[in-house]
Amino acid sequence: MTSCRSLLLLVIFLPASLSSQATKDKADLIVTGGTVVTMDGAGTIYDDGGIVVRGDTIIAVAPRAEVAARYQAPQTIDATGKLVLPGFVNGHTHVPMTLFRGIHDDVTLNDWLYKYIFPAEAKNVNEEFVRWGTRLAAAEQIRSGVTTFADMYYFEDAVAEETKAAGMRGVLGETFIDFPAPDNKTEAEMLAYTENFLKRWQGDPLIHAAAAPHSIYTCSLKTLQDSSALARRYHAPILIHVAEMKKEWADSEKQHGMSPVQYLDKIGVLGPDTIAAHCIFVDEADRKTLAQKQVGCVHNPSSNMMIASGVSPVPELRAAGVALGLGTDGPAGSNNDLDLMEEIDLAAKLAKITKMDPLALNAKAVVEMATIDGARALHLDKEIGSLEPGKKADLILISLDAPNAVPMYDVYAQLAYALKAHDVETVVIGGRIVMRDHKLVTINEEAAIAKAREYKRTIANSLGLP
Amino acid sequence: MTSCRSLLLLVIFLPASLSSQATKDKADLIVTGGTVVTMDGAGTIYDDGGIVVRGDTIIAVAPRAEVAARYQAPQTIDATGKLVLPGFVNGHTHVPMTLFRGIHDDVTLNDWLYKYIFPAEAKNVNEEFVRWGTRLAAAEQIRSGVTTFADMYYFEDAVAEETKAAGMRGVLGETFIDFPAPDNKTEAEMLAYTENFLKRWQGDPLIHAAAAPHSIYTCSLKTLQDSSALARRYHAPILIHVAEMKKEWADSEKQHGMSPVQYLDKIGVLGPDTIAAHCIFVDEADRKTLAQKQVGCVHNPSSNMMIASGVSPVPELRAAGVALGLGTDGPAGSNNDLDLMEEIDLAAKLAKITKMDPLALNAKAVVEMATIDGARALHLDKEIGSLEPGKKADLILISLDAPNAVPMYDVYAQLAYALKAHDVETVVIGGRIVMRDHKLVTINEEAAIAKAREYKRTIANSLGLP
Repeated sequence: MTSCRSLLLLVIFLPASLSSQATKDKADLIVTGGTVVTMDGAGTIYDDGGIVVRGDTIIAVAPRAEVAARYQAPQTIDATGKLVLPGFVNGHTHVPMTLFRGIHDDVTLNDWLYKYIFPAEAKNVNEEFVRWGTRLAAAEQIRSGVTTFADMYYFEDAVAEETKAAGMRGVLGETFIDFPAPDNKTEAEMLAYTENFLKRWQGDPLIHAAAAPHSIYTCSLKTLQDSSALARRYHAPILIHVAEMKKEWADSEKQHGMSPVQYLDKIGVLGPDTIAAHCIFVDEADRKTLAQKQVGCVHNPSSNMMIASGVSPVPELRAAGVALGLGTDGPAGSNNDLDLMEEIDLAAKLAKITKMDPLALNAKAVVEMATIDGARALHLDKEIGSLEPGKKADLILISLDAPNAVPMYDVYAQLAYALKAHDVETVVIGGRIVMRDHKLVTINEEAAIAKAREYKRTIANSLGLP
Repeated sequence: MTSCRSLLLLVIFLPASLSSQATKDKADLIVTGGTVVTMDGAGTIYDDGGIVVRGDTIIAVAPRAEVAARYQAPQTIDATGKLVLPGFVNGHTHVPMTLFRGIHDDVTLNDWLYKYIFPAEAKNVNEEFVRWGTRLAAAEQIRSGVTTFADMYYFEDAVAEETKAAGMRGVLGETFIDFPAPDNKTEAEMLAYTENFLKRWQGDPLIHAAAAPHSIYTCSLKTLQDSSALARRYHAPILIHVAEMKKEWADSEKQHGMSPVQYLDKIGVLGPDTIAAHCIFVDEADRKTLAQKQVGCVHNPSSNMMIASGVSPVPELRAAGVALGLGTDGPAGSNNDLDLMEEIDLAAKLAKITKMDPLALNAKAVVEMATIDGARALHLDKEIGSLEPGKKADLILISLDAPNAVPMYDVYAQLAYALKAHDVETVVIGGRIVMRDHKLVTINEEAAIAKAREYKRTIANSLGLP
C-alpha cells in the first residue's frame, strides 16, 4: 500500500520536476536573485533569493532556484548583486509643502509659522498647488525607496488622486484645525469634506483616506471628538500630532491636569486606528497607554532636531511595545527633504548620542522602524512592511555598485549607515514598477520640477521675499 | 589736451571692445553660467557667474558676461542652472579604513577597537591595503564634492601617492602611536619614516605631508614632542585627536592636573600648524587657548553621535574665533561613509537640538564650515576654501534638476538641508576635471569596488566573521 502510494506520487510529480515552461505556475512579475532582506518575524535573509508577484500581491519568497523551478512570469527584474527590501514607510509628512521647501529656516517655530508658513498657505494653497506639490513629493519619495506614506494636509482628496496616479500607497488625512484652512473654513465644512473623502476612497487598493485633527493645541475637544468619530464611522485611521512640543505638554498639564497622551486617551481619541506623530514628551505612563491602546507612533528625527523640539524616547517606546515608525515630517522648515534613508541613519545616531550609549539603538532596529514597524505604526502590517506571501508587492532594489556601498559586512549596518537614497534603483508598488533603473515611470518629473520653480517665484512674491 | 587723451584711449580700446577672439586673455578653463557661491569674506554670490582658471589657479570670478567678453579658453564647463561652489574640505578622516566599513557597529568603542579594529589592522593592513582603501575613498569623496581631505593613518606615503593619482588635495599625516603599528614598530622607525615622507612631498602642489601623533592617551610626552618637533622642522602640519572622549579628559585632569587642550598647550604641541580633530570636551579657557594659538579644529558630528562620545560646543567655538571645519571621521564604526554633505546638514541639526534652539547654528555657518572655515582649520585658507582670484581652482558643480533640489528659496538652506552628495555633478581640483557629469576621470572605480569586495572576504576570514 505504501509503495503504491509512493509510485502514484512519483507519477504525479514527475512532470513537474522536469519543469517544462508549460507546467510552471503563472505569475505576473518575478524578481530574481539578489540579497532578499525580508524583514519577516524571523529576520529571514535569502542570499540569492526570488520573489513572485501575482496581481498586486506577493505569492512566494524563496531561494532563486526554487522560484525559477516553479514559476514563470512575463515580466522579470534581475536583482543579482543588489539588495531587495520591502518598500520604506514614511510615517509622517505633509507632501504638498515641498513647494515651501526652505522658504525660511533657522528660525523659531513661532516665527516660522506666523511670519512665513501661515501667510504663505493663506495666499498660495489651493487644489492646484496641492496637486503639484504631491507630484514633486511622490518623485522624491519614490527615489528614496518610499512606497507608502502618511500625510496630513488640505485638499487631501487631490493629494489622494495624485498619490494614486503616482502608483504610491498612502494613508492620507484631511486636516481639522480650529481656524479657517485653505480648503474648509469651518468645522462643519471640514466634516462634510472629510466624509465625502472617506466615502470616495473606501476599498481602494492604494489609498487609505483618513481624518487628521491637527493637535490638541489647535483643535477644541469638540473638533477632536467629531473628527475621530467620523473616522471611526468609516473605519478610517486618525492622524494627529502628539506631544511634539514642550509647551504643548506644559499647557496640557495646566489646562487638563494631565499629559497630552493621557488627555487624548481620556477623550477617546486613542485606539488601534490612531497614528500619533512625534511623541516626544511621553513619560512611562504615556508609553504604557500608547502600547495598551495600540496607537501607532512615528518618530521624526530630522524634524525634531531642526525645530529643536526635543528627542523622543525611542528605545523606551520600543521597549514598552509601542509600534514605532519613522517619518521625514514636512519638507519645509523641518527637514528639508523627504529622504527616509537619512531618517534611518539619524534615528540610530540620535538615540546613541542622547543616551551616550552606542548600543542604544542598533542598525536592525532602525531598518525595522522604516519597514515592518512603520507598517505597524500605520496599522497596515497585515498588508505591507515585509516581503512575505500574502502581502502587497511593495519592494525596492538597492544597488551595491557605488563606492559607499562596499565592502559590506552586515546588511543592516550598510542600510542604516552607508547606503543612500540614490542607491535605490528600482521600486515596485502593488506589483507595478514605478521606478526602473532610476527612471520614474508614473510621474512626469521634469514637469513637476519646472512647476516648482514657477511656484517659487509666485510664493516669494506673495510674501515680498527676494 | 584732455580731449586728445580721450581720443587716444578710444583708439587704443576700440579693438578690444569689439572683442575679437584674438585679443581676449588666454586661460585654460572657463566655468560659465550658474549661481556662483564664492564663500568669500563678503558672501558674494553671482546669479549668472563665470570663473576663469589658468594652470591650477583661479584668475577671475565675475558675472558671466564680463568673463565672456574678456577671456577665452580651450576648455569650458557650462554651469547654467547649477550651483558652483568651492570644493568641500573633509577636515578629518582615515581613508584606508573604507575597507573596514561596517565591520562591526553598535558596539562600545572599547570592544570595537580591541575586538575588531586593532586585530583587523594587525592582520590586514599593509601598503597594498592602504592603496586600495585610498582609491575607494577618493572615489567616494569626489562623488560628494570633497576636493581636500585631512587624513591620519599608516603607510601614509602610499596614501599620498594614491591621493595625488586621484588628483585630490590632501593634508596627510603619518601616525605616531606608542604601540607597534602596521607600518612602523618603534618610535625611531616612525620618526625615520615620517622624515622621509615629509622630505619627499615638500613643494608638491597637491600633497601636504604631515605628522600625526594619535592622541594624548596613546602617545607619551616624548612621542608627542618628537613628532611635533619633526613636523615643525619641515614646516609641516601636526594632526591629532583632541578631547574626543570623556575618559581622555578625566585622565588628563587626573594625570596632568589640566584638560587635554591645556596639557597639549603646555607641552608645546598647539600652534598655527596644529589640526585638532573633535574638540568635544573643551571649556571656555580651552576655547580661548585654541583661538589664541590659532589651532585648526574639526567637528565630526556623525562620528561623535555614532560612538556616543559627546557633542562639541560648536557655536561657542565659533564665537571664540576658533577656525572650525567639518569632518566625516573614518568610514568604519564611526559614520560609516565619507559624505561631507551629510555632515553639513547634521552639524546644524545637532547644534540646534543640543541647545534646544533652532537658531543655534544656521545654514550659512555650516556651509562655511565645509568650505572656507574648513580651509582655515587646515591652515590652507590662503590656497583654498573660496572662489577668489589667486586661489587654487578647486570647485564643484551641483545640479538643481532633482526633485529634492526645488524650489530653492535660499542657496545656503538648500545646500545644508536639501541637496545631497549625488547632486554633485562635476568636480575640478587644481584646474583639473576629476569628475564630469558624475563620471570619475582619475580613478578606476570599478576596480576599486571589486577589490573592496575581495578584501571583505579576506578580512572577514582573518577575524572568523561570516
